[in-house]
Amino acid sequence: MNIMKKNLLETHDYYRERVNSQLELYLSSISSTKSSSNQLKDIMKYSALAGGKRFRPILTYTVANLFDVEIEKVDSCACAIELIHIYSLIHDDLPVMDDDDIRHNQPTSHKVFGEAQAILAGDGLQALAFQIICNDSLIDSAIKIKLLSLLSTSSYAMAEGQSIDLSIVSQKVDLKVLDNMHKKKTGALLNCAIKFGALLNNTSGKDLSILDSFSNNIGLAYQVQDDVLDVTTSDEVLGKRQNSDSIKNKPSYPAIIGVEESIKTFEALYQEAMNELSLLSVDAEPLRLITEKLMRRSY
Amino acid sequence: MNIMKKNLLETHDYYRERVNSQLELYLSSISSTKSSSNQLKDIMKYSALAGGKRFRPILTYTVANLFDVEIEKVDSCACAIELIHIYSLIHDDLPVMDDDDIRHNQPTSHKVFGEAQAILAGDGLQALAFQIICNDSLIDSAIKIKLLSLLSTSSYAMAEGQSIDLSIVSQKVDLKVLDNMHKKKTGALLNCAIKFGALLNNTSGKDLSILDSFSNNIGLAYQVQDDVLDVTTSDEVLGKRQNSDSIKNKPSYPAIIGVEESIKTFEALYQEAMNELSLLSVDAEPLRLITEKLMRRSY
Repeated sequence: MNIMKKNLLETHDYYRERVNSQLELYLSSISSTKSSSNQLKDIMKYSALAGGKRFRPILTYTVANLFDVEIEKVDSCACAIELIHIYSLIHDDLPVMDDDDIRHNQPTSHKVFGEAQAILAGDGLQALAFQIICNDSLIDSAIKIKLLSLLSTSSYAMAEGQSIDLSIVSQKVDLKVLDNMHKKKTGALLNCAIKFGALLNNTSGKDLSILDSFSNNIGLAYQVQDDVLDVTTSDEVLGKRQNSDSIKNKPSYPAIIGVEESIKTFEALYQEAMNELSLLSVDAEPLRLITEKLMRRSY
Repeated sequence: MNIMKKNLLETHDYYRERVNSQLELYLSSISSTKSSSNQLKDIMKYSALAGGKRFRPILTYTVANLFDVEIEKVDSCACAIELIHIYSLIHDDLPVMDDDDIRHNQPTSHKVFGEAQAILAGDGLQALAFQIICNDSLIDSAIKIKLLSLLSTSSYAMAEGQSIDLSIVSQKVDLKVLDNMHKKKTGALLNCAIKFGALLNNTSGKDLSILDSFSNNIGLAYQVQDDVLDVTTSDEVLGKRQNSDSIKNKPSYPAIIGVEESIKTFEALYQEAMNELSLLSVDAEPLRLITEKLMRRSY
């Protein structure tokens, strides 16, 4: 492993630990009611602190660093994006949705606390994602509004994407429908994570539109790759049941165009994303390394 | 009926129609995906435009008017508060929560579209509540942040209140637990609706703290009264099944202290709220009339 890649891993570990401790700090600070019967905070912490790659916060920290944003200013955005992600996982895992029992190698929230409390924990986490940015005293109001506007748009798109995903189960759909679904369900939040880093420095214009396109490309690539990994990787490595999409009759890239073509598709998307990075006004080496790492990921 | 009360009803009708048309306009403007299979927008509109008293938006318009805020500046806040309310009704009505089949004299969202899509419609509505304020070009950024901060805090408290409500089913609880539950489940959003009107004019200090206390009092009064009406009013008038709380073994004021004491309690809370209004720096007659009207409501 060369020095740069070693540094990248160390930096990612640092970002991951940083967002983990920020999330723990924030969720612990939520004023608890005196009533001992209230457990919403515990339920949120159960899901939020269970681990996970923290891929979206790592992207936010990485991009913010490219644009010279002090790391203390990035924490609330990194947490917000992860809180939305965690809420979506809790709701997606529900029996009436994807019906998953295991997430991050532990029973899903509804298996432990019941469906009603799991739904409410998701609802609460979404509200807190907006709150943490609102209450960050280090960020200027005008910039906060840009961040919150993007967050709300992305969070809405994610719900719409999941709605489309459920509505096309057992249906024959073309790639356009699948692309649109992925763009909303997974892409919107990745797009938000990446653009957060630039918006924090009030970046607009060309750099922002390059990051927009870059994130859409890696977002779709990531999802096509997920479809591929879903049919080629073991349970133990994925931390969830193998082949879960095809078991549920969900349309997927491999199901429509086969595994080999799907691999070619996501590799081309990653390549396009790489090419876009060279157009940025800042040195994007850390993003290039992340993109390369994603291309080669095995889980 | 005297002139003032006639004017009040006409003003409320105007506010109700105004928020109805603003909600319709806003939800229709959500960019729809090309995919014909996506119906999230339709599901949200089904619940959002089904009617309802629009009590919270009426409060926001009323308070904003007391503080001389131009009505065009109030629309996004009025919609936001109602979007949160509607999302909460959709989730509360789910089989794993309160299991209600009828709302506003029509089948509940999950009865028509299925539970998964109903959950997602609620999720989407919560995101849109934040979006509509973020994107309002008439409001200053610093004020928007105050509004969004209060909205997120109130929305979180509401989820927590519902979590407590579900956790105390079939339990013996004291009034303190019940008060805390109501304060969060119903009170927080009423508090937000009322303070929105003042925050829009950047009001702070004494007036804001009077409104804070006033709204907490009418919020709790309203809920105790709801408990009373729940056991004394017919289905047809309520638009939902009568006696639904006691059927579900939910602790209620009448169950703990009896109907008569419950009536005394909510009347005293309304009276305290009335007294507080005279301390405001502005003429609060419209709020006094609303409070009187609430005291005498029969559904």
